[in-house]
Amino acid sequence: MEPIPPDDRGLLLGDGLFETVLFKAGRAVLWDAHMARLSDGCRVLGLPAPDPAALLAQAEAAAAGLDRAAVRVTWTAGSGGRGLPRPDPVQPRAVVTAAPSPPLSSPVALATVSIRRNAGSPTGRLKTLAYLDNVLARREAQALGADDAVMRDTDGHIACASAANLFWIAGGRLFTPSLAGAVLPGVMRAQVLALEAVQEVQAASIAGAEAAFLTSSLIGVRPVASIDGRALRPHPLIAGLQAQVAASS
Amino acid sequence: MEPIPPDDRGLLLGDGLFETVLFKAGRAVLWDAHMARLSDGCRVLGLPAPDPAALLAQAEAAAAGLDRAAVRVTWTAGSGGRGLPRPDPVQPRAVVTAAPSPPLSSPVALATVSIRRNAGSPTGRLKTLAYLDNVLARREAQALGADDAVMRDTDGHIACASAANLFWIAGGRLFTPSLAGAVLPGVMRAQVLALEAVQEVQAASIAGAEAAFLTSSLIGVRPVASIDGRALRPHPLIAGLQAQVAASS
Repeated sequence: MEPIPPDDRGLLLGDGLFETVLFKAGRAVLWDAHMARLSDGCRVLGLPAPDPAALLAQAEAAAAGLDRAAVRVTWTAGSGGRGLPRPDPVQPRAVVTAAPSPPLSSPVALATVSIRRNAGSPTGRLKTLAYLDNVLARREAQALGADDAVMRDTDGHIACASAANLFWIAGGRLFTPSLAGAVLPGVMRAQVLALEAVQEVQAASIAGAEAAFLTSSLIGVRPVASIDGRALRPHPLIAGLQAQVAASS
Repeated sequence: MEPIPPDDRGLLLGDGLFETVLFKAGRAVLWDAHMARLSDGCRVLGLPAPDPAALLAQAEAAAAGLDRAAVRVTWTAGSGGRGLPRPDPVQPRAVVTAAPSPPLSSPVALATVSIRRNAGSPTGRLKTLAYLDNVLARREAQALGADDAVMRDTDGHIACASAANLFWIAGGRLFTPSLAGAVLPGVMRAQVLALEAVQEVQAASIAGAEAAFLTSSLIGVRPVASIDGRALRPHPLIAGLQAQVAASS
């Protein structure tokens, strides 16, 4: 992987997007969904979109030889001059790397954190390089003794974990935060919505949850052991989803 | 300037801070104030703070030969593995560059934009590498035919421009957004507060402003010609501040 020039706008301003894609035995899982989301994000940010085929070739080369890999596709606004305005034309830069990504299925402890996701900008719904709030949310959760965060958005609605979508079961029904809030439209979130009846809601609290799980491309479906120290129960729906998601990828 | 490795957390996650410092004839203006803010930001983010003397040597080398220069000091969380958690120990990376920065004193047209600053995270009060909301705010303002943005924060309060603090005069009094909101504690903002009696407020609107100006380290004090198409008047207080700030640096 070539080094990055110090005038890259991804480095200087967080001006860009990324995707993290699971590769199994060298093959991408749900590649088209990731590229569709990346392309949508480019439209919102006003960036040229990448050529998915060229990126796939880079990603496959990076993931070669790895049994189960996390491929990170970083798409920056490229090099630019001083200040906020982009150069004309923008020449985006692709950075594609791979790392081993063993499966993680053990239940996680969550803690509600103070860091909010920005509901007042489209960046709250995109996987941008300006990811620092998520870094801080994870740090806060770990300082609270948990594995990951429950993040609210600035409107006070439950949004997601620090790098995963959140689902919960209450009264026998399955819920997840609505994309009307500052919620990333997760690729694995969409898979779950295709498999199960889910109520998409803007919730002020998940204190009534009986069970919960996280979703992301790398972890698939992962149960939540506790939220803010309150133990949750295993649930057959979660085990069923884990099996279906593992089988389909 | 050395290239940046592709695993730098500033590039990948916006995990870091920056300062933009004016250099005149090779000498830094208000260096200590910039370093104090950077050090404060490191404490909030949980990053090791830089050695100001070492950074100054790099900055002076970068600015050498330039009559009036913008020196950008970028302080990232350094290289790291995959995912959100930082390595232990964190080894921050400094990137110091300089560019010519001619004085800008012509009045600017502002437009109120939809992009909000995040009042639900400390990042809304820091100069972080996750600066994308500011990039988008500037783009929106320019699409509206203006030069720069009036940004509100997610609580609805007037906050700042895309890369400058905002002051306005109404009823003969001088106002600026309070640091209680998602407002950067600008170095030049502090200079103005030391020179003039200023009311720090959380304002829902600046529709009543008779005159206004922006402040930043690079531009000093710059008058606002109009807000949302409504022309503002020149004001002797602004001209006086411009002269004082220019003389003091």
